[in-house]
Amino acid sequence: MIVALAGGVGAARFLEGLIRVVPQKRITIVGNVGDDIEFYGLHVSPDLDIVTYTLAGLVDPLRGWGIKGDTFHCQKLLQEYGYKTWFNIGDRDLATHLYRTEQMHGGKKLSAVTASIVSRLGLDVTLLPSTDDLFQTYVLSGPRRMHFQEYMVRLQTRPKVRSVLFKGSESARPAPHVIRSIREASGIVICPSNPIVSIGAILAVKGIRAALGKTKASIVGVSPIVGGKTVKGPADKLMKSSGIEASAIGVASCYKDFLDALIIDKVDAQLVPEIRSLGIKPIVTQTLMKTMADKVHLARKAISEFRR
Amino acid sequence: MIVALAGGVGAARFLEGLIRVVPQKRITIVGNVGDDIEFYGLHVSPDLDIVTYTLAGLVDPLRGWGIKGDTFHCQKLLQEYGYKTWFNIGDRDLATHLYRTEQMHGGKKLSAVTASIVSRLGLDVTLLPSTDDLFQTYVLSGPRRMHFQEYMVRLQTRPKVRSVLFKGSESARPAPHVIRSIREASGIVICPSNPIVSIGAILAVKGIRAALGKTKASIVGVSPIVGGKTVKGPADKLMKSSGIEASAIGVASCYKDFLDALIIDKVDAQLVPEIRSLGIKPIVTQTLMKTMADKVHLARKAISEFRR
Repeated sequence: MIVALAGGVGAARFLEGLIRVVPQKRITIVGNVGDDIEFYGLHVSPDLDIVTYTLAGLVDPLRGWGIKGDTFHCQKLLQEYGYKTWFNIGDRDLATHLYRTEQMHGGKKLSAVTASIVSRLGLDVTLLPSTDDLFQTYVLSGPRRMHFQEYMVRLQTRPKVRSVLFKGSESARPAPHVIRSIREASGIVICPSNPIVSIGAILAVKGIRAALGKTKASIVGVSPIVGGKTVKGPADKLMKSSGIEASAIGVASCYKDFLDALIIDKVDAQLVPEIRSLGIKPIVTQTLMKTMADKVHLARKAISEFRR
Repeated sequence: MIVALAGGVGAARFLEGLIRVVPQKRITIVGNVGDDIEFYGLHVSPDLDIVTYTLAGLVDPLRGWGIKGDTFHCQKLLQEYGYKTWFNIGDRDLATHLYRTEQMHGGKKLSAVTASIVSRLGLDVTLLPSTDDLFQTYVLSGPRRMHFQEYMVRLQTRPKVRSVLFKGSESARPAPHVIRSIREASGIVICPSNPIVSIGAILAVKGIRAALGKTKASIVGVSPIVGGKTVKGPADKLMKSSGIEASAIGVASCYKDFLDALIIDKVDAQLVPEIRSLGIKPIVTQTLMKTMADKVHLARKAISEFRR
């Protein structure tokens, strides 16, 4: 079994490659729920949905989130009812949130509903939320504390971030099977996701980081930072405001207590010695994922580390 | 102030005429909530929405319910999540149910949310649900008890109905202002709605029927039965199964304890003596509402009774 720790768009693109080189039923994905937020009374799980929609071939390929060809008719009328609709939810996408919310009101855990959604959309991977408990990512900007989605989507990452905090990290327990999957994995991938608010939010659930430190499986990361910049999202900004260098070195340092190897882009080849000095094996390759061939190549590169 | 007791499509069409002859702020509509039902965790109020959408000019004119031009993309994906989607809810329509449900979860009463919806959609009428309490219409068919919507929409009124019952009628209290509106009205209209499951469901809320019996206002009904048949919906069938003749006479008999006058169609002119014998003034006119002129004509006919 291969386990992948995943955030949103970057992870989903990598996983599209992975499901083409490893049978879906051998893949367990641990997804980030720090981005989860309620809109219109509905429980929205942006990262879980990006992964599911992408792997199910439903995702809007340009945006990287939501469902391709989706319409926004409901949202337009919601505006007339006075809602602030800065977080776009398409009409088809709404079905997922309605289903999730109704099932959770009925007593189902997020992990159980997520499994149903994955299965209903025809997938055979296992997708586990990092936790079933309350866990939310906030950023502090000046005197303001705001939900990560407010920073990311409403304010388009414009505010200067002092620090990131995870509400619920003191009490949230890993969802069922998360720890066991890590312990029993034959290989683990840290997807090219934001090390602070995506992977970092998963690692902030008590027990997950320790399990990665203890597992016998090889752990391979893919750097989301290429040439000192993030491919998508605010990883570089948030790394800097967390006092971490916005580079593959910074990424390596976030994971140095458990990472065996880090895949970095060719443009960062000069960082090889420094990564090696952290006790991590550097693997240099083309990491930008424009085509499916790019994604498959990257997935092959990652899992080749598990076959030694 | 004019008060109108209203069901769904027939009432909404009549009210379209009424708002053209009486200023909206002088109209209080008491709507039926016996049809209310939950789908996907959302509180759906079909009759209240038909009235609101119709008066706001949003209604789908052919169906008589829902929003014109609405799409059903969300519902299609809900099917994939395993929901039975025999009750069609369009994408725009969903916004109303989301708003209502979220507000009610937050502690607002149905009457308060209804007032917000009416106002947000630009209307100036007062629309009161008959009750804020649990009140649901069921039909008994053979050994089966089913929600009215199941009978009406899922089974397309095919089952033979033994009787109709109102769950909650023992405890449901009239919503705020309903009784006072009836008491202080200058005129009251019983819209051309189903006397059993629409108007009957309103009258089954304790205190409403008695208030109609006591008010000093003239009360004028419009028969939904023309030539022994219902214009729309199962009124004729349900009247028969309740032991009531499916005719304007049957309608008159349902309301005879409070009705002053009943508007009947020209084709029923021969019923005049019998209606008069019930102590109700018969008013014969064209009652079918095909054009806006028909609706205005009927509304004028009704309110002319209040001006004596």
